[in-house]
Amino acid sequence: MPINHTVRSFDEELGYLEAKIAKMGTFASEMIEEAVNAVVNNDLDLAKKVISDDMFLDETEREIDEKSVAIIAKRQPMAVDLREIIGAMRIAADLERVGDMGKNIAKRAAAIVESRQPASLYHGLQSFATLTLNQLKEVLDAYASRSLERIDAVRNRDEEIDAMYTSLFRELLTYMMEDPRNITACTHLLFCAKNIERIGDHATNIAEALHYIMTGTYLSTDRPRDDTTYKVGADEKTEK
Amino acid sequence: MPINHTVRSFDEELGYLEAKIAKMGTFASEMIEEAVNAVVNNDLDLAKKVISDDMFLDETEREIDEKSVAIIAKRQPMAVDLREIIGAMRIAADLERVGDMGKNIAKRAAAIVESRQPASLYHGLQSFATLTLNQLKEVLDAYASRSLERIDAVRNRDEEIDAMYTSLFRELLTYMMEDPRNITACTHLLFCAKNIERIGDHATNIAEALHYIMTGTYLSTDRPRDDTTYKVGADEKTEK
Repeated sequence: MPINHTVRSFDEELGYLEAKIAKMGTFASEMIEEAVNAVVNNDLDLAKKVISDDMFLDETEREIDEKSVAIIAKRQPMAVDLREIIGAMRIAADLERVGDMGKNIAKRAAAIVESRQPASLYHGLQSFATLTLNQLKEVLDAYASRSLERIDAVRNRDEEIDAMYTSLFRELLTYMMEDPRNITACTHLLFCAKNIERIGDHATNIAEALHYIMTGTYLSTDRPRDDTTYKVGADEKTEK
Repeated sequence: MPINHTVRSFDEELGYLEAKIAKMGTFASEMIEEAVNAVVNNDLDLAKKVISDDMFLDETEREIDEKSVAIIAKRQPMAVDLREIIGAMRIAADLERVGDMGKNIAKRAAAIVESRQPASLYHGLQSFATLTLNQLKEVLDAYASRSLERIDAVRNRDEEIDAMYTSLFRELLTYMMEDPRNITACTHLLFCAKNIERIGDHATNIAEALHYIMTGTYLSTDRPRDDTTYKVGADEKTEK
């Protein structure tokens, strides 16, 4: 006879959601690393692997959603218990989108294989991915330990991500202006950089979900949420 | 004495969520139209308005979330009733992100004001916005009338959006290659096009949320979800 899972305690059910989220977080981070490596090393086999890997996150998000709705219907939780479940669904949605970013980056690998750009550019892209993945890891650690203090550190590092993205953006524009043959590849690399930047946004969303779970209140929305490269044109204008 | 809202029926509470979502949908669509107009007409005042308008969607999403959690805690709904509420939260999250797209587009207006591009390009951008906003409108109408048939039509039009985006992408690359002075503006316009394309993704997400509400099952995830411009490089390679 199989174990009767319907008698599992509520805590065990929450533990199930948490374990799935931890798995999604590790998986999504590895996807991003591999996607960036595929772009940097022209590794189209690795790119294909990342693209097919994305299905795992889609399925796991769905499992978390189905389980969450089942727990709510069965347990009829209130207050923090209910927030734990709603929060888990939100975090799963963000991690699924981090996986989409990995898939998007991997898809660009094929488009840029013909036109190598300077090594410094690829190093920049890798460092940027490392920075945002650290952000993601910290926020997932904060979630695992239900630590509100750790969130603040993460949120304050948004500016670092913005600065690095803007710097990469400018560098890519320079290469495009130097030689029109760089334009196609650099455009795809721009979108890769944008995808990496968005991982930082998802980390911030997860921090907000954790804050909501623990306090029942929402963080203020006046944080920087979009890239600041729209200022690049304006800056250049004043420099003229 | 004020009316005692705590005795409102469950149907009235669901109606509240629906009305808020309809309002978000109209507001988000208007934001996109205005943002694109701001870019097309170099209208920086309109751009500023759009950027500050975004707060309304952030706040309304929060209201929907808070109300949803309160309804779940109070009514302890099951089956389709519970799915209605979870679905409303998902749709609100997508509409909030459509607003973010509008804000992102509006922010680019300042960066491209100095370097006018050919009128055909702006027309292309506006037609593309019209196409994705029609998609969004139809899916919101489908939600309002709880019509599953109308979803299929929406999902099948994803390819039209992909084709139009790829065409805009190619056109922008051409202008960049023709004259390096176009590069900065065209890069920002590329991101505008990308943001418009993502509205189509959000429309698809809303269609999936509606399917989930009405059936309790998930649509298959093998739909096209990302842009296909990554093939541009690959195509060009084979053309050489």
